[in-house]
Amino acid sequence: MSANLARKLIESHLVSGAMTPGAEIAIRIDQTLTQDATGTLVMQELEALALDRARTEVSVQYVDHNLLQTDEKNAEDHEYLRTAAQRFGLWFSKAGNGVSHPTHMQRFGIPGKTLAGSDSHTPAAGSLGMLAIGVGGLEVALAISGRPLHLRMPRVWGVRLEGELPQWCSAKDVILEMLRRHGVSGGINRIIEYHGPGLSGLSAMDRHVIANMGAELGATTTVFPSDAAVRAFLREEGRESDWVELTADPDAEYDIEDTIDLSTLEPLIAKPSSPGNVVPVREVAGTDIAQAVIGSSANPGLRDFAIAAAMVAGRQTVPQVSFDVNPSSREILTDLTEMGAVTGLVIAGARIHQAGCLGCIGMGQAPAVGRNSLRTMPRNFPGRSGTREDSVWLCSPETAAASALTGVITDPREWARTVHMDYPKLDLPTRASVNTTMLVAPLDPELARQVRPVKGPNISSLPPLTPLPERIEAPVLLKVGDNVSTDEISPAGARALPFRSNIPTLAMFTFTQIDDTYPARAQHVSESGHLLVAGENYGQGSSREHAAITPRYLGLRAVIAKSFARIHWQNLANFGVLALEFEDPADYDGIDRDDFLRLDNLGDIAHRTSLRVLDMSKETTFTVRHRLSPRQVRDVLAGGLIPRLAQSE
Amino acid sequence: MSANLARKLIESHLVSGAMTPGAEIAIRIDQTLTQDATGTLVMQELEALALDRARTEVSVQYVDHNLLQTDEKNAEDHEYLRTAAQRFGLWFSKAGNGVSHPTHMQRFGIPGKTLAGSDSHTPAAGSLGMLAIGVGGLEVALAISGRPLHLRMPRVWGVRLEGELPQWCSAKDVILEMLRRHGVSGGINRIIEYHGPGLSGLSAMDRHVIANMGAELGATTTVFPSDAAVRAFLREEGRESDWVELTADPDAEYDIEDTIDLSTLEPLIAKPSSPGNVVPVREVAGTDIAQAVIGSSANPGLRDFAIAAAMVAGRQTVPQVSFDVNPSSREILTDLTEMGAVTGLVIAGARIHQAGCLGCIGMGQAPAVGRNSLRTMPRNFPGRSGTREDSVWLCSPETAAASALTGVITDPREWARTVHMDYPKLDLPTRASVNTTMLVAPLDPELARQVRPVKGPNISSLPPLTPLPERIEAPVLLKVGDNVSTDEISPAGARALPFRSNIPTLAMFTFTQIDDTYPARAQHVSESGHLLVAGENYGQGSSREHAAITPRYLGLRAVIAKSFARIHWQNLANFGVLALEFEDPADYDGIDRDDFLRLDNLGDIAHRTSLRVLDMSKETTFTVRHRLSPRQVRDVLAGGLIPRLAQSE
Repeated sequence: MSANLARKLIESHLVSGAMTPGAEIAIRIDQTLTQDATGTLVMQELEALALDRARTEVSVQYVDHNLLQTDEKNAEDHEYLRTAAQRFGLWFSKAGNGVSHPTHMQRFGIPGKTLAGSDSHTPAAGSLGMLAIGVGGLEVALAISGRPLHLRMPRVWGVRLEGELPQWCSAKDVILEMLRRHGVSGGINRIIEYHGPGLSGLSAMDRHVIANMGAELGATTTVFPSDAAVRAFLREEGRESDWVELTADPDAEYDIEDTIDLSTLEPLIAKPSSPGNVVPVREVAGTDIAQAVIGSSANPGLRDFAIAAAMVAGRQTVPQVSFDVNPSSREILTDLTEMGAVTGLVIAGARIHQAGCLGCIGMGQAPAVGRNSLRTMPRNFPGRSGTREDSVWLCSPETAAASALTGVITDPREWARTVHMDYPKLDLPTRASVNTTMLVAPLDPELARQVRPVKGPNISSLPPLTPLPERIEAPVLLKVGDNVSTDEISPAGARALPFRSNIPTLAMFTFTQIDDTYPARAQHVSESGHLLVAGENYGQGSSREHAAITPRYLGLRAVIAKSFARIHWQNLANFGVLALEFEDPADYDGIDRDDFLRLDNLGDIAHRTSLRVLDMSKETTFTVRHRLSPRQVRDVLAGGLIPRLAQSE
Repeated sequence: MSANLARKLIESHLVSGAMTPGAEIAIRIDQTLTQDATGTLVMQELEALALDRARTEVSVQYVDHNLLQTDEKNAEDHEYLRTAAQRFGLWFSKAGNGVSHPTHMQRFGIPGKTLAGSDSHTPAAGSLGMLAIGVGGLEVALAISGRPLHLRMPRVWGVRLEGELPQWCSAKDVILEMLRRHGVSGGINRIIEYHGPGLSGLSAMDRHVIANMGAELGATTTVFPSDAAVRAFLREEGRESDWVELTADPDAEYDIEDTIDLSTLEPLIAKPSSPGNVVPVREVAGTDIAQAVIGSSANPGLRDFAIAAAMVAGRQTVPQVSFDVNPSSREILTDLTEMGAVTGLVIAGARIHQAGCLGCIGMGQAPAVGRNSLRTMPRNFPGRSGTREDSVWLCSPETAAASALTGVITDPREWARTVHMDYPKLDLPTRASVNTTMLVAPLDPELARQVRPVKGPNISSLPPLTPLPERIEAPVLLKVGDNVSTDEISPAGARALPFRSNIPTLAMFTFTQIDDTYPARAQHVSESGHLLVAGENYGQGSSREHAAITPRYLGLRAVIAKSFARIHWQNLANFGVLALEFEDPADYDGIDRDDFLRLDNLGDIAHRTSLRVLDMSKETTFTVRHRLSPRQVRDVLAGGLIPRLAQSE
């Protein structure tokens, strides 16, 4: 059988398991990335694992999320991460160096390598022909310590690209088309592999846009071949010697097949408040806006800023719109500045922010309640912007820039007709302004052993985790619908994120966007513990393991859902929470909040995947199943992976 | 008598009163400025005053303080300010356009005009030969509505500058020398007027540095002559026609005289946590630092950024230091970008922030607890950075840049010797890149009347204020020492500032940096009200009237202090709080927290300045005095200026 690229990448790193869709496999990890919102826990986990030195080829700790520093906590985290990175032999990317995904691609990405990252947009590195997977922090900690990464073998979804993008359409419209067709759970348990003649018109950074937001489809990852476009990118970055050609075999087979004719696309936009609510821009044109934001890891390339700069050059954005520019990396900011594009943006009325994630993760530029904000970012889950009742739309830089100039949602083709503008031909530099000032190299092992990581007062230890009891008899404290994101479980944003290294404090924010009585009610029943009931795709979005740890800390023992998002499902197992799926989804309707449920004989779940649940309030029973591997069962019974590793020492 | 410039400026605007130091005078106000932290109250006050349209020559509402937007409150304030500015015929400077002081100087400053601003650094415009005074928001509201500004005629302090600054010293070292000599209360009830041959070496922006931080001496304002340097500045800004020559008469006399020989200065630095703790940099050289910040209204000029850029060009800041650059205005950011200096700064490791106040007001870049942060900002009061136990130092851009490169506090002369660098000769543009995109002009009066200011849910109304009772019998809830700043009374920073338009919520932050039980204790005795006892210079620093309103809202009826800072003293009267000074400062020592004090017959304070206070707990009495004018007595008796104006309608 002719192999596709995804299977080749897995096969070359396979440690154990059979490459049959659904079977558990383990793969060797060459590189890791962590960012500051998830990294402080990873560093605490490395300490708990008593690691001496990273055993990967490259491990990088980035600081890109918490850059606003409204009090001492961010600066103290940065100091902890810098010194912990030194202790464990990691690279350290300083605050202001850029968002992990484009920065990693620029400085460290190598075709054919595997990358595990504690950030759900880690698959962006698939743009270079890497196998890049977003996982929980604990799994990254295990990868850094040389252990393989376990996952279910996904199905490979071949998407053949044909034709060429029309003018005023760009890579963002390609991934929005995927979301329009398949929705936010269309990629679950799949690797998306793009191939076909349409690739030739997409640069490596264009592919980054598409691979990055593959996470919004719920895909395990996205891969692109390593071809001439990747070679050109590595040449620009002064690393052409890192290039190897990697493609699928001719006539490679895929588990699922799909085709997009790029020439048929038009500017698209995701309406509030899901990346899956995609419609053509023309259908919502004319809607008033209050903000337009360019940047983030979902449109990080120099081209994405330069096209906006070319459109606004010599023009003015309207008074009632805040036009925000988030440079995605210091390198891109430098190139953009040297091109003169920063000047043009500033003159047109842009607010230039420091290089980092910023508004994408709710750290700044929050809009007013109910006012429309157009963003080139990857996600618009409710409240993720930092504003509780926000109204965030996702679109291309072309659409955002045109709308900033008019004050209403605007199809860039229509705008171009009105102002008689041809689609700009961008003259981008062929050599990037590579600069490693803010990238601190690993210390020599001898020196590294002398470093004591500096822990500020807000950096706590991991709370102890008790084993799963033989019987759970506990109330359902929340019943939620479909597609609840980890943002809704454990909010990001400037209020909560500074406490990410302090579980007891952070726990008090758990689910408060859905029901702010949850933390207090959970503490009230801490003796019995409690349960959650959820719909489809529970735990989509960000990879943050806080969404498993904080409800666990508050007493969560099991979640019963119609289905789970992959990373969160794994995080639940890692932290000793039983993830159960309804055998018959219709049983979801029969349960109410505050029902008491009972599950018995939990000690033998290694031997059965099906469990009976007694609804003591309704006097009914129903059946659920778990999908845990024997390895994961051991973890859950022990109370989580950390106590299980402690048992086996 | 030959007139000094300060007296000429007052005389040309005098509406009533005699120009005798200490006597109350009223002057006509030509221009006003408000910023977003104080402006939302000013707009509510304009509504309360039922103003139709601004009666000044120029009134500008700036948005420069609250730019981080970590939730919807900032964006809603911006929208309220934009629409209120339209309603009342004000200019509106959008978020990202820049800090009010340099921006006002660039676009609106005219020699010979008066300016009232609800920001304590308003005197910066004295650099252009303006009479610019920082006052409470309510007084700005009255000025906008065409009423004169009342103040005590200050004494004029002539400071003769001689000689030329040595290399590696700049304007910041001049004002630090003033603070070294005279401390943070040396300028109280004085106007500082600089004159003499040393002026010729100081550009208008250099003078801005000195005039801005005159506020740190407690001065009413600072004036410089309008001479060739001012003309050159206005020419650069494309406004040479606004220039008029304005100087003191030859042999002008001053109430107090002082001389600085610039050639004798050396690099200076203010140690934590007062701008008055000034020592030579060499005395503290070698101290570890974690942060260096360039920018703010205290070093806003293109030159201040360009000198730092020249020093770091081709070099790298050290890994453990965050090197932050806060552009002070969009115009300066544009010029700096076009010069190529932004690129150099970024390559050296700088984090470039959006144009605005940011870290100066605790909105971002807060340092870790106890870690040294060097800043070119004007203030280092405890906690103002956003970090409770901060360690902030104030210095020139030269000292900050040298220290960012070495990681320790560094005398730039010593650094230059080590790296064999000559003092850079800067090649600055002679025409600024003037751009008014983000400056929204006043609406036509007909259109303005149709605008309804948009009030978000966090914008409350002003609370009602009851008249002063005939007798106060109440406990002393706090006894504080000398130089308590308005930052300590009503904190800025990202936690509190978003509530600046919501007095009931903001009140719960009052004095929490000094004693976080104060708000609850005050609410507990709301029946009787309460008192405060303070040392010298009570209420120094920022002009925010919240520092009067929030304790008043919690029941404060009188403050008994050794002395008051001018703006806060006026704000207390405006909001109906009795400001009393000890006749004998030694009586301060006899009072303890929680003592019950009694003041009788308050209805007749128009007829006596001396009052007896009975300490009921100690069974002692002592004497205090007030310095209120008959006008202010009427305000205080009515419960404040707003109820008094309501009475007279």
